[in-house]
Amino acid sequence: MRASRFLFATLRETPNDAEVISHQLMLRAGMIRKLASGLYTWLPMGVRVLNKVEAIIREEMNRSGALEVFMPVTQPASLWEESGRFEQYGPELLRFKDRHGNPFVLGPTHEEVITDLARNELKSYKQLPMNFYQIQTKFRDEVRPRFGVMRSREFVMKDAYSFHIDQASLQETYDVMYQTYCNIFNRLGLDFRPVQADTGSIGGSGSHEFQVLADSGEDDVVFSTESDYAANIEKAEALFVGERAAPTQALTIVDTPNQKTIADVCQFLNADPKQSVKALLVQGIADEQGNTPVIALFLRGDHELNEIKAEHHPLVAAPLTFATDEQLQTLDLNAGFIGPQGLVEKNIPVIVDRAASVLSDFIAGANNKDQHATGVNWERDALFTEVYDLRNVVEGDLSPDGKGTLQIKRGIEVGHIFQLGQKYSEALGCTVLGEDGKPLTVTMGCYGIGVTRVVAAAIEQNYDEKGIIFPQTIAPFEIAIVPMNAHKSPATLQAAEELYAELSAKGFDVLLDDRNERPGVKFSDLELTGIPHRIVIGDKGLAAGTFEYKGRRDAESVNLSKDELFEKLKA
Amino acid sequence: MRASRFLFATLRETPNDAEVISHQLMLRAGMIRKLASGLYTWLPMGVRVLNKVEAIIREEMNRSGALEVFMPVTQPASLWEESGRFEQYGPELLRFKDRHGNPFVLGPTHEEVITDLARNELKSYKQLPMNFYQIQTKFRDEVRPRFGVMRSREFVMKDAYSFHIDQASLQETYDVMYQTYCNIFNRLGLDFRPVQADTGSIGGSGSHEFQVLADSGEDDVVFSTESDYAANIEKAEALFVGERAAPTQALTIVDTPNQKTIADVCQFLNADPKQSVKALLVQGIADEQGNTPVIALFLRGDHELNEIKAEHHPLVAAPLTFATDEQLQTLDLNAGFIGPQGLVEKNIPVIVDRAASVLSDFIAGANNKDQHATGVNWERDALFTEVYDLRNVVEGDLSPDGKGTLQIKRGIEVGHIFQLGQKYSEALGCTVLGEDGKPLTVTMGCYGIGVTRVVAAAIEQNYDEKGIIFPQTIAPFEIAIVPMNAHKSPATLQAAEELYAELSAKGFDVLLDDRNERPGVKFSDLELTGIPHRIVIGDKGLAAGTFEYKGRRDAESVNLSKDELFEKLKA
Repeated sequence: MRASRFLFATLRETPNDAEVISHQLMLRAGMIRKLASGLYTWLPMGVRVLNKVEAIIREEMNRSGALEVFMPVTQPASLWEESGRFEQYGPELLRFKDRHGNPFVLGPTHEEVITDLARNELKSYKQLPMNFYQIQTKFRDEVRPRFGVMRSREFVMKDAYSFHIDQASLQETYDVMYQTYCNIFNRLGLDFRPVQADTGSIGGSGSHEFQVLADSGEDDVVFSTESDYAANIEKAEALFVGERAAPTQALTIVDTPNQKTIADVCQFLNADPKQSVKALLVQGIADEQGNTPVIALFLRGDHELNEIKAEHHPLVAAPLTFATDEQLQTLDLNAGFIGPQGLVEKNIPVIVDRAASVLSDFIAGANNKDQHATGVNWERDALFTEVYDLRNVVEGDLSPDGKGTLQIKRGIEVGHIFQLGQKYSEALGCTVLGEDGKPLTVTMGCYGIGVTRVVAAAIEQNYDEKGIIFPQTIAPFEIAIVPMNAHKSPATLQAAEELYAELSAKGFDVLLDDRNERPGVKFSDLELTGIPHRIVIGDKGLAAGTFEYKGRRDAESVNLSKDELFEKLKA
Repeated sequence: MRASRFLFATLRETPNDAEVISHQLMLRAGMIRKLASGLYTWLPMGVRVLNKVEAIIREEMNRSGALEVFMPVTQPASLWEESGRFEQYGPELLRFKDRHGNPFVLGPTHEEVITDLARNELKSYKQLPMNFYQIQTKFRDEVRPRFGVMRSREFVMKDAYSFHIDQASLQETYDVMYQTYCNIFNRLGLDFRPVQADTGSIGGSGSHEFQVLADSGEDDVVFSTESDYAANIEKAEALFVGERAAPTQALTIVDTPNQKTIADVCQFLNADPKQSVKALLVQGIADEQGNTPVIALFLRGDHELNEIKAEHHPLVAAPLTFATDEQLQTLDLNAGFIGPQGLVEKNIPVIVDRAASVLSDFIAGANNKDQHATGVNWERDALFTEVYDLRNVVEGDLSPDGKGTLQIKRGIEVGHIFQLGQKYSEALGCTVLGEDGKPLTVTMGCYGIGVTRVVAAAIEQNYDEKGIIFPQTIAPFEIAIVPMNAHKSPATLQAAEELYAELSAKGFDVLLDDRNERPGVKFSDLELTGIPHRIVIGDKGLAAGTFEYKGRRDAESVNLSKDELFEKLKA
């Protein structure tokens, strides 16, 4: 490609509304432009990267034996009604009617469509396992799109869905996909970790996220210092630690006027929050009459509720919803002053986090406005219904596999593999004839990669103050050739053209920067856009028979003979 | 690819709801499945073809110097309001609101989005010309989707938009795109014709459609027997032929009770429809008070109105709309019995087609219910406002270039190139700084290919009673290898595996049909899906050192040595 015929839409200034570095650099490098909130046009510089990412994904998916399909973006609402998600899915699911008034959705995902396809096309166990994938546009009407293409409303996803006669077959394909994802992200040049993930309400026995480690990540990823254990914090189990000591203090009521938060109360009482419990009152599952009970959750004062874990508790409604002021009033409870004492007696289930359950002589609300209790002890002063893992782990916690302690880093989820089980095949009646001639509900897996997000994630991991440092496999161009004073020195342009032709013929993706710009402008653009190799051709070098080479991460350029240069580029 | 791991979703029966052959065969070959009206999922067999078509298009577009971009499917309505099309575009434009109530459309085309991009990114005449293209999903809410992917609601399009400082530059890029389209359709193996097309209300000086000739086509394409002239019938000019003879008959009123159509009247009067005129009363352009006048169009009885031509007349409203019954009553006119006599005197403009204008002694309505007039003559009996080209040409008409006569064939439009001029750049204010430092409104072209439609069009041209006959460049597989009795004869399977490996290594796209099916089933599937080359490996051939080769169009198979086989495949 000749730069003079390409769109260099580079920006010198950092755009105001871009919070994270990848968003800033993608705008500055002229890779994307915002069309509307959460909608981005990919410019030629960005499309080159996107196409390379897609090609690697397609190649590895084909190699894994998955078969490519292509499903519509617009999907009939009726399928979503069959699966139950037309109601369940929140406003991220964009619903609309066509000219005839028939209801449709813009596909945020394709489980329904592929399961509908499978129930029509798959007839016999002999056809299984089968794994279908596509690379297609998705739409999720995010309430607050942000971070550029990292969390946009329209985005490109590689989604795959596999079909099996049993769990063992699913596990086999799942393992193949796990390895395929590792291959893909390795080829994309990403520093990533497969981590255990929550399987949500679907249950199923396995789910892994592929997390790219970067400070701007929206996920907390937990690692063991001593083992391979890695999990999303949503999933990481907080182990029991220690045993409850016997009570030593008497329960005492103290006035704590207007001290509603744990921090306030503990400062006021000059106590450590680790020696306190905090209450979270949430909606329980509605009974047959439609009444929703209130459930009391208690955590140690310094711990954070893990909503996903709470939602897994059979008494707690999902999505997690806090009790209303009216419900608290009815129960004669004052927010900020609630303790576990007497709740079970009032028929309020009390679920205590493991860490809170081993406290003794602790501080809790007194169930009177502006009062707390000190010296509270479980059983003696407060009954509980159940002990449960309710909290997020923190750095230094024991690793759930018993080896080492936990560290926490930020991650960007770029892939997710998931054992769906029979959720969709049951809802949509997707069966095949089994070996015994009887219908058999298929078992499913699903496997996603955020294709557009991968580009942003790669940048979050690879940049410096000059701009992007693309991994060579996905760089918009692999090599840039800059003839010095091309418009005055025909010899350098001639030499540049020859090198351009030679390198292109060898299969390199080369940019010849023949623009009528100062060298400084060209160098800035080439660094900003993250092109891995730069070759400058000047009159001096021509006379000496050398090329000025600089790798994108190098501090200084070096003069290389042609042979040395080609050796360098081959490596 | 091993067939045992592929999805062969072939059907023996022709599906009921598929009218055209490509739709039938794409369903039968397991290339597509209907998800909802006008929405199709592409199965693995179809995606392989689609990907090959896309790759050829992308390669040739890149070669032409166009730059690939990727624009969102969802577009803010505000841009369509700027261009005026939010109101103008009919219900094919799917409009919806997002969760915040902001109006959007599902993009049926991307002129607005690309012009918005260009007005932000293109600053100087030095950057031009620039040609952007994308391969992206489009949505048009067709009132009656049909013919499978030929006229679906969601489809894939390659659309390109070029930007220029002047018409001369546009013409240059237009010519490049014309040649690029020829290259693309040649590589796709299509029998196509570039034909002149109407430029519609946009005006502009040039537009060509690329028409694939096939009986199922929805367009009429007109050719000269003696020259290169080719045009869509919408565009083809009907020349003046002959001169008007002097009147010989007196005007006579005859009773024609209930004879409303030209066919009825002429049969009733035992006259040739060529000796009659028919009236079409349509809406004129509204005046400043908002009143729409009625305009009378007259054509020879055997001719068909060309609506596009009529819409070009400055007095006629577009889209063409017939006068209402109320309007006719007010004017004291009876549908079916309208003649030109006295209309101009009633202030009804009378526009006469060229062929009708040279009639004398003709039959027309008498402007009385159940009466016609014979021996009518222009000027003596009926004034007219203007003579205009209003009709569709018919076979045998003179070619507009004066060379030969016209033939008419059916065509499927697979591509369209169009000189847009400044319609969008003016509406959206897309300017660059010109050489003189002053803002200059850019001139635009646009260039589309219906990517999914191309696949159907290729099939419409290439099939027989056994199924599809794909051009090799876009076949799902180039070669199929069938080991006979593979499950009983390890030797044939072994030989097939070796040949499979060898041909794959040579870069051929090979299917090894290792399915546990009877040879007849395999042969039918391979013929149905249009794979160009079939190689059967049996025990006899193995012993003789030959392979049984059959091209998809061949009547019989031939036994070839390995060298002969490879020669054949190379050719």
